[in-house]
Order: sequence, then C-alpha cells, then structure tokens
Amino acid sequence: MHSHSAAVIGASGYSGLELTRLLARHPHARLTAIYSDRWSGERAGARLPLPGPAASLAYLPLAEGEAADADVVFLATPAEVSADLVPRLLARGAKLVVDLSGAFRLTDPAAYPAWYGFTHPAPELLAEARYGCPELGREALAGARLVTNPGCYATTIALALAPLVRSGVASPDGIAVTGLSGVSGAGRKSSEDYSFVEVSDDLRAYRLGRHQHVPEIEQTVARHAGACGPISFSPVLVPIRRGILATAVLRPAPGATQADVAAALERAYGDEPFVSVRAPDKVAVKDVVHTNRCHVGAALDARAGALVAVSAIDNLVKGAAGQAVQSMNAALGWPETAGLDLLGG
Amino acid sequence: MHSHSAAVIGASGYSGLELTRLLARHPHARLTAIYSDRWSGERAGARLPLPGPAASLAYLPLAEGEAADADVVFLATPAEVSADLVPRLLARGAKLVVDLSGAFRLTDPAAYPAWYGFTHPAPELLAEARYGCPELGREALAGARLVTNPGCYATTIALALAPLVRSGVASPDGIAVTGLSGVSGAGRKSSEDYSFVEVSDDLRAYRLGRHQHVPEIEQTVARHAGACGPISFSPVLVPIRRGILATAVLRPAPGATQADVAAALERAYGDEPFVSVRAPDKVAVKDVVHTNRCHVGAALDARAGALVAVSAIDNLVKGAAGQAVQSMNAALGWPETAGLDLLGG
Amino acid sequence: MHSHSAAVIGASGYSGLELTRLLARHPHARLTAIYSDRWSGERAGARLPLPGPAASLAYLPLAEGEAADADVVFLATPAEVSADLVPRLLARGAKLVVDLSGAFRLTDPAAYPAWYGFTHPAPELLAEARYGCPELGREALAGARLVTNPGCYATTIALALAPLVRSGVASPDGIAVTGLSGVSGAGRKSSEDYSFVEVSDDLRAYRLGRHQHVPEIEQTVARHAGACGPISFSPVLVPIRRGILATAVLRPAPGATQADVAAALERAYGDEPFVSVRAPDKVAVKDVVHTNRCHVGAALDARAGALVAVSAIDNLVKGAAGQAVQSMNAALGWPETAGLDLLGG
Amino acid sequence: MHSHSAAVIGASGYSGLELTRLLARHPHARLTAIYSDRWSGERAGARLPLPGPAASLAYLPLAEGEAADADVVFLATPAEVSADLVPRLLARGAKLVVDLSGAFRLTDPAAYPAWYGFTHPAPELLAEARYGCPELGREALAGARLVTNPGCYATTIALALAPLVRSGVASPDGIAVTGLSGVSGAGRKSSEDYSFVEVSDDLRAYRLGRHQHVPEIEQTVARHAGACGPISFSPVLVPIRRGILATAVLRPAPGATQADVAAALERAYGDEPFVSVRAPDKVAVKDVVHTNRCHVGAALDARAGALVAVSAIDNLVKGAAGQAVQSMNAALGWPETAGLDLLGG
Repeated sequence: MHSHSAAVIGASGYSGLELTRLLARHPHARLTAIYSDRWSGERAGARLPLPGPAASLAYLPLAEGEAADADVVFLATPAEVSADLVPRLLARGAKLVVDLSGAFRLTDPAAYPAWYGFTHPAPELLAEARYGCPELGREALAGARLVTNPGCYATTIALALAPLVRSGVASPDGIAVTGLSGVSGAGRKSSEDYSFVEVSDDLRAYRLGRHQHVPEIEQTVARHAGACGPISFSPVLVPIRRGILATAVLRPAPGATQADVAAALERAYGDEPFVSVRAPDKVAVKDVVHTNRCHVGAALDARAGALVAVSAIDNLVKGAAGQAVQSMNAALGWPETAGLDLLGG
Repeated sequence: MHSHSAAVIGASGYSGLELTRLLARHPHARLTAIYSDRWSGERAGARLPLPGPAASLAYLPLAEGEAADADVVFLATPAEVSADLVPRLLARGAKLVVDLSGAFRLTDPAAYPAWYGFTHPAPELLAEARYGCPELGREALAGARLVTNPGCYATTIALALAPLVRSGVASPDGIAVTGLSGVSGAGRKSSEDYSFVEVSDDLRAYRLGRHQHVPEIEQTVARHAGACGPISFSPVLVPIRRGILATAVLRPAPGATQADVAAALERAYGDEPFVSVRAPDKVAVKDVVHTNRCHVGAALDARAGALVAVSAIDNLVKGAAGQAVQSMNAALGWPETAGLDLLGG
Repeated sequence: MHSHSAAVIGASGYSGLELTRLLARHPHARLTAIYSDRWSGERAGARLPLPGPAASLAYLPLAEGEAADADVVFLATPAEVSADLVPRLLARGAKLVVDLSGAFRLTDPAAYPAWYGFTHPAPELLAEARYGCPELGREALAGARLVTNPGCYATTIALALAPLVRSGVASPDGIAVTGLSGVSGAGRKSSEDYSFVEVSDDLRAYRLGRHQHVPEIEQTVARHAGACGPISFSPVLVPIRRGILATAVLRPAPGATQADVAAALERAYGDEPFVSVRAPDKVAVKDVVHTNRCHVGAALDARAGALVAVSAIDNLVKGAAGQAVQSMNAALGWPETAGLDLLGG
Repeated sequence: MHSHSAAVIGASGYSGLELTRLLARHPHARLTAIYSDRWSGERAGARLPLPGPAASLAYLPLAEGEAADADVVFLATPAEVSADLVPRLLARGAKLVVDLSGAFRLTDPAAYPAWYGFTHPAPELLAEARYGCPELGREALAGARLVTNPGCYATTIALALAPLVRSGVASPDGIAVTGLSGVSGAGRKSSEDYSFVEVSDDLRAYRLGRHQHVPEIEQTVARHAGACGPISFSPVLVPIRRGILATAVLRPAPGATQADVAAALERAYGDEPFVSVRAPDKVAVKDVVHTNRCHVGAALDARAGALVAVSAIDNLVKGAAGQAVQSMNAALGWPETAGLDLLGG
C-alpha cells in the first residue's frame, strides 16, 4: 500500500535518474512529481524504462520544486541549491526531506566555505539533519525530518573504517585512503576533461588532499568510533561508468590479530542486509554494482605493520539513490530493504 | 650503424612483443633472433607491423634460446625459466643479458622461496646483476653483463619514493602505496578471471601485502636513499590494457615544505629525458602510455600530515621493454634515448 | 501468490545467472532448484545478491538436473546437452520446459548438422517446440509445453525485419545485416581470445556468413511475414559486456514512404510493453541494457534506395533470460510483464 | 637530411596531435611551426612527448597560420576554415598544402551545400586538389600542390570496395556498408553526448544515410573502378578511442569465386607496404591501431549471394595524419614509408 507520496528535485542527473527508477517501484512510497529543467514537459517514460504509472509523469521545471508538496522530497541538486531549498521545503510542511548533496552533511557551519565554497545559509538546520548511513546510526534516522545523504566516497570509506576503529583493532590516527571512482560520480559533464576520449584508458588522481568528503569521513568515523584523526585521501578517476573501490591503510593496535579484525567486521555487519564482509581481495565492484550493497574486507599486513581495508559500492546506489531510499525507509519506519531488492548485473 | 646483434627469448608475450617492436627499430642493436614456442616457424611480420628486415625473422622454438649467440639477449620469460637460462647464456659468452623477470632482482637469495616460490639456482649471480633503473643508478649499468629489469610496479613506485626519501623530505618508514595496473601487466591469460567479461567495468584488489614487487621496491629505495622501512602495498586491477598509476603516502619530515618537495623531485629528475615532474593531479597514464616515460609528482597534505606522491608509467614500456632497452643503451655506452623516441598516443 | 516452482539448469553461466536473478523475484514462479557443477554445494546468495529465499538455495550438480521436478524448468545449457535433457524432462512430467539453447529453434532437423554440428537426437520434438518471441507469435505460446528461446542476434534482428517485410514496405530478399555484440554473448570464456587484453579496444568480425542464428532469423521472418530470402549476416565483437545493436539494410518496395515504414513499426509494436519504436539514430544499447526491452527504428535512404533498420537489446535479458521469463509468462497465462519490471541503468 | 619545412595548422585537435607526432620524427620534413589557439604560447613538449627539437616549438595563434611560410602546410581545421585558408596558402607560395578536412575532397562544387553545409568559396581549386589515398592513385600525387586527405571512413571503405569493383568480382550497385568508429573520429568534444558516461558501454548509429563520407566513397570507387552506385552507409559509434572497422556487403558477379576475390585483393595490395590482405574474420582494429596500415579481407557468402568485405584502420593514422604524411611523401618524391615506421601497440 502506498502511503506516502514522493518527489525528486533534480531528476535528470545521474543520481536523480537512479532515484526515479527506485521510487517508481517502491512498495510504500509513490512517486508523484519529478523536477528537471532540461527535460521539462517530457514524460518520464520517454527517458527511462519505468514500469507502472511513474512512466506517465511529466518533468516539471526545477523552480516548481520549491512548492513540492509530496510527503517525501528528495533533492539531487547541487549543494548551494539544496542549502536554499531545504529550509523552504521544511517550512512548507514536507514530512521528510532527503538531500543528496553535501549541504547538510558537516555539522560545523564554519566548514562550508573551506570545503564547499559557500557560506551556509541555514546553519541552524545542521543540527537537525540526520546523517543517512543506517549501518552507522539508524536510531537517529527514526522519525527524522531532514536526512542528509552521505557522499559516495564517504559511505565507501566510513563503512570500512568505522568498525575497525571503534573496535580498537585500529588506531584513529594516520589513516591513508586511496579511492577509485567511476565517472558517473562526477555528475553530468559537458567538459572536454570528461569526454570519452579524454577519460577512456586513463587513470588520474584529482582533488588530492582537498576532497570535500574528507571532513565528512572523519566526522562520521569520530561519531561512530569515538575519534578520528585527519585522513589522507587520494581520489583517482578510473574509466568505468559506475562503482567505487577504496583501499585504506590503518595502523593496527599492538597485538591485534586477524581474528580480531574479522570479528570487528562481523560484529558490525553480520546481520546487515546491505553490508557484507568478504576477504579483502574478494571485494569487487562488479559484485555490488546495480545493488544497494557494500562489500568490505580487511587484513593485517604484519610485515608492514599495517591493516589494509578494501571496500566497494555502486556510487549511484549505495553511494547515492539507494542509500537515500534506505534512509527514507528507516525514517518512516518501513523495512530498510523496501524497494531495494536489486538484482545486480 | 648496427654494431650489436640482439635476441628476444619469450617474444610472444606482451613484454616480448614490445621488445621486438623496439629492437626492430633500434639504431645500434640489430634484432637477429626471436624465440617463441607458440609462434614457432611464423614470420614476425605476420604477427607485428614491424618495419625493416626484422619482419622477415622467423620465431624459433624457445628451447633454442639457450644457444642464442646474439651479443645482447633479452629474456621475457617466467622467473624460473630465466633463473635457469641466464647462467647458461653468460657461460656461452653473451656480452649482455637483460632479464625482464624477477629472477635476479632481489639481492638476498633467501628471499626467493618466500616471494617467488622457488629456490634460486644461481645465487652467485645475484651480486653481479645490475638493477636496470638508470635514473636510480646508471653508473652501475655501464659495462654490465647482466641487467635485471625492474618490475613494473617497482619502477613506478621507486621512482616516486627514492628521491623523496633520499632528500630527507620524507621518512623511510610507514610508507603506504596503492598501485592501479592495467591488465597486460598480468601477462597473457587464458583464465576466466582475466576474461573480458570478468574484468571489464570491475575494480578489485589482489595480492594484498604479498606482491613480489614489495621487497624490490624496499631494496631499491634503501639502496638509493639509505633506508626504507617495510612498505604496505595494495595492488588493484583496473580495466585498461596498459598503464600503471600509483599513489604513495609518506610521512613528511618535520618542517618539510612544498618547495622542499618540489626541489627534491626537480633535483632528481630535472635533467632526465624519461622522468618528468608534474603536479600530482596532472600525472596521468594517458600522457605516458606508448612512451618510455614516467611522470611523477608529490604534494604535502599539511592537514593530514602526509606527503602524497603520484606516479604513472606504461607497464609494457618504462615498466618492461622500454626500460630494458634504456638499460641496454646505458650498459653498452649508447645514448640512453636510442631507439626510444616513442610518440605516445 | 507463487503457484509454480521453477528450476534453472546451467545456473552459473551468464544467461543462467540472469535467469536466477529474475526468477528470484518473480511474483508467480518460485525458484526452487538451481543446477551448476562449478558451484555445486555453494549457496546462491554467496554468488549473487539475491533478495528473498532464493539466496539460501544451494547449487546442485548438473547431472541431477535430469531429475528436476519443478513445474517449469529452464535450460541454460549447450545445445547438445539441451537436446538430450529436454525429452527426459518432458517425459518426467515437467509442465513447461524453456530451453535457451539453439537445440529446438530450427524446425528442420536436417539443419542441425550444418549449423550446430550435431545430429538432432529428438527431431520429433521440433514440431512441438514453440518459438519464444512473444511479439512475433504469442498465440502459439499459450499452453506450450516446450518453449525454445530465440538466439540473441535472432531476437534483435527478427524484431526489426519481420514487421517491415510483413507490411510490404520491404522485400524479403537481399537483406544484409551487421550485428554488434557485447562479449557476454559468447558465454563464459577461459580462452585467450576472449581475455581482457585481447578484446578491449578491439573490433573484429567473426563467423561471417556462418552464424547459427542466420537460419533462425530467416525462419522467423518467413513465419511472420510470409517469406524471407537468405540473409547476409556479419557479426562483430565489440568491447562492451552486454548489449547488441544490429543494422539491417533492406530493399524498400517501390513507392514505400517513410510514413509507411513508421506505420509498419507502430502497427507491430505500438501496444507492446517490451518493444518500442524510436528514430533509428536514437536506438541505443544503453537505453535497453538491464531491461527486457528492444528498441527498433527504420528509415528510408531514398538516395541509396535502401531501408535501414536499427535495433538494440540486452543480449542477456531480451536476448536470453528476460525473454525466457516473458515466454513462460505467456505460456502459463500470466501477464507477460510479470517479474520483468526492470529498471535499466 | 631535412630538406623541407612543415607546419601544422590546428595542431591541438586529435588529428593535429598525431600529425605533430609524426612530423617531429620525419626523416626529410622538419616541423617548424604549429598553430593552435587553445595552446597558444605553450611549448609542444609540454603537451606531447616529442623527441628532438620539435619539443621546443611554441604553438602560434591560429590566425597566424595564414602566413605560414613552411614548404609543406598541413591543415587539421574544420572544412570551412580550410576552404578559406587553402587558397591563401597556395597564393603565398606554399609548395604543398595537405588539407585533412573535407573541403576539397568532392570534385563537384554543388555537393558542398548538401553534404557540408556551406557554399564552396574556391571551387576552382577542386580540380587541382589531388585525392590523398596513394594505394588508389599515387601517380596523381606526384608533384601535387594541393592534396586533400580522405575522410577516415572513406579510406577504410574505399580501400575495400575499389579493387573488388574494379576487378569485376563485385557489382558497383547495391553496396551496403556499416562502419564502426572509435570516438576520436568525432574530434575534441565538450558535449555531454560524447562524455565518458554517455558513450561508454553504449552502441548507437548516427548520421544514417547522410554521412558526408558517402559521396566521397562513391566518387573514389568510381574513379578507380569505373563506376559506383549510391551506397547505403550506416555509421555506428563504438566505445573505443581509436579505430574503425567496416563491413561492406556487395553483389558478387555471376560466377565469381573466392579465388577471384582473393586474387583481386592480392593484385591490388600484394606489394603495398600499408595495405595487407587478411581473411575477413582476421581483420582486427588492434592489428592496425597506432600504425598507418589498413587490413582488408573479403569472402563470398554463396548461400546469401553476397560478397562481404571487412576492413580496419586507425582513424587518426591511416584515417588522417598517417595518410597525410604518406601523401606528402608521394607528392615530394620521398619513399612513401618515410616517417611511418610505426610500431603499433
């Protein structure tokens, strides 16, 4: 039974498309409005192979998103746009707003100019926003009015680091991470740098030491595990469309054993429907792509005195739309797996 | 003028093919014999678009490689095969043997069972072998009789780490590296794990903490810089045919500045024809593929207290055949760039 | 309500995996048994992200497939294996057998040695087999006991050709087709020819003039349209994992107009849930991949006196598993779209 | 000995880059000037791994190209720009102008509005322009002042069709071709349609029946073989960076045998350094990429009454820059292979 209406603002971006697909098939939320300037007036069914009534929805201009009166409003808009829209939507009475941008992820307003390039217009909402990574804090999501969806790298990396630090098998300090991301994570691009010829067959690092997901990862791990030192993060663009794989190197606690490591991950995720523990060299993007899953594994490298963790997700699903739906489910008291029975491929 | 004859044993593997291409066009060495069982009897010109007389060479059976009487013999054979062939070739009077396998890279014979899975049959030659990475030790190559060609990851990573540690801007301890490699680095494969469907669109880590290039990198950096602690190395297979990009995280020395870092790399490579310094987020595989070049860059992440270095090469050229030719040039007193005026693409 | 049990024999091949995914979520058929030698004893959930109870199924040895007692048995086995198994399954009382191989596609037993390399062991079943392409003959599927699932190229091409010939806008003679196929169409491969390094960045034609889907396409078009001359078919392997795009060149009837062409396709597919008409240069693999859809378009090239049709499908869905499920739905009287509400991506 | 100076106008496009690479290493032509607005002022060596003195050349503004005084001027500019520049360069006394655009390819001025969208400003030069496909007419190139470089598809397809029609084994009428092209053939793109995410894993046809290479192919085959009916041409964009493969279907002459077909190709290309005959299912892009070669093969499909030809080139080399250099060599009386001893890869 569909008890709640849902809208997607920014429905033509890659995350917006994924949200539209998932909500079109959700057992409890009914997609009632989609907003996109670029496809304004077109039928959703002309753009996506949507089953059911959602195919008949017409895209509305983005500006009308402000007046969205759906019970649940998802924002797949740039951070500055979200920062402006979220307060308006909440003021209009939206039951739940799920923002996929970074606009409400950092709890400290002072961090926004440095990491996002703008001064936060609604800092009072930062404390109200609930961080939408259920495996690392679902209690806070129950009854939430505003959910901030984590960044794709942040989800991938925090899911690997948090239980290892929290359990004490790894130190919160000196963590170094390399993240490999497929290109859809950058959003729709009409710049030559992201053209097929320029990206295909290439590997290149970017935003070294200054990726906006860094403070988010540190904040999330600290919240879950008690502490988290500054993380060195090296993102690398890889020529695949979807998927993220991250390799994290941590300092193991003296005496930590592989059994301790395995137990820490098992304890954290043994019962989770969407996070599975694998041997770290069995963590592969192809096993999680087109699903809401994260695979994570870790192993001690005694020789180097390091603990290496590997994790993988689909950046558009568990890294964006899928997790947003999962958090909506958690916030509204539905089974977290509702509408997320994805088949992979 | 072609003063030396050259032979390639194992000419049908990916490195062997690259060697054949380069030697077919070398101004001083003349390719006179190529050995491959799989293509035994076929003309090289039927397998490769070789210019000149090399196209008429017929592949000889691998077993005849033992009797190769060329002045310079290149081995693109598995380590155990090389370990057996190298002593024989030297005993027969080869002026120079360049081995592309790992069989003579580690100076400590005791390391071979652990890292390569066999007991070294000719440990007395380990001291004679010269490590073929000219930028990190060309004096030792002059007049060498046996050159051991570095592993592809080893070249990529040692070129980045060595000057940073040697100069004192980074500590030799606690280094963590993630290496992304294209699939040709694994050699010819008829296993399903390396099939197109299984590799394309995927990312996966492998040989975590146990890749055989690790002791080689540590040994090389230690030789060049004085010391090198155990390195945590996480290789990741990425779906491109050629190319390696590595991200290394080092501990900067107290007070080290970005200017110090830049100076260390500039001092090391400013005059080098094949190694160029770039901003680390401008290091890209596509700029070095199909050339014998390595691009390297490094930047301090003061916030995280880390020094991040990024380097890239073509695994089949600077990571194998190109560097082998460069080392031959150095050993025989020719300009190192001879025959390596590659155009990229 | 799940009224029928279903089994998949050959569940670890690419089509078998896709069948497993689809059946795990089917509203009326319940997956009860999966057979695979390579994964015998393993839980399906360890191999695929299956939602629901299907994840607990353990793979059974292929030999036990003969005794499969599910209501519906799907065979994703090589043609010779299917030719042997199908009669046994029917004899045991299977309500419906859906064979994804070519073993029962050609109505003429004499064609099997030439096109499939074996003599048909059960030619008497050829007349009973129903060709499982609902859009070109769903009446025959109602109540079928044996459905033969079309080949991937055959589906792609027949869906484009059949209505154009049947309507009279194109001649049945002199048709020439080029088919571009992603690599999963070749099945699991452990041959070097299908390795990532050998396939990536390459294009090559294969089985020119002798692909086994040719007689199948001609038979299908003839059945639907009245006649079909011999077709020239050039398959080309392209470096993508999934997807087929075909370009067909037909001879337009004298006086045929673009409006006639559009009307022919619209009349054939206007009401079809899985086949959509698009302008031929808007037919794209990415719009149909991970769905059970086919997009098809055609346009007259008056200058060249040709009618060019373009069609695209996902070779593993509409080209294999998806169409098999669609045919099962048709055979058992369920809505054809049951369990096929796929989201694309 | 370098006897001629050469300039490249439009040196930053993909063809321009390839020209720069080839000319930097040419034994007889010395690259003296490169023109590009986007890189104006930058050193070529900062953009390309150029060996030798070419690396020190600085890009000059495109507008200065008009005053280029090199002996040989290569134009890698859009057709309308070339149409304007070519007369000026010839008037200034350029010994040889090689234009890589389509501006001087069609002999009939009336064809330009229809196929290229502009009225030709210098139709009097169309008769002087020599079509730069040496294998199909090198005599005309000797002493040429203006060479028009063929389009990439045109080269690939004309090389396959011309000898088959000329020899009489195939009819000039009813030819249908599908061409698969890598993305660099479209040039530098900052449009979303050519972004990595939109192109990767996709296949789509474009410019159906209206690609500007069609009249060029017909004109070339007619010139070489005596006649050529209108050709149906279906281009398809495939997700590789470089390479073209074309499948052509021709009507065999009554009584033509496979031996006749083989003889026709052998006679045409047996002695050619850059065109090789292969079995049609052995023609592969990877064998020609990064070389100036074309592989072509053809086989009768007696069953379908068709002759299928397959050909492959590297669109940037034999399809653009390589052929331009080859034609320069022919025009200036140098060995056609000069500077084109490329190694593939």
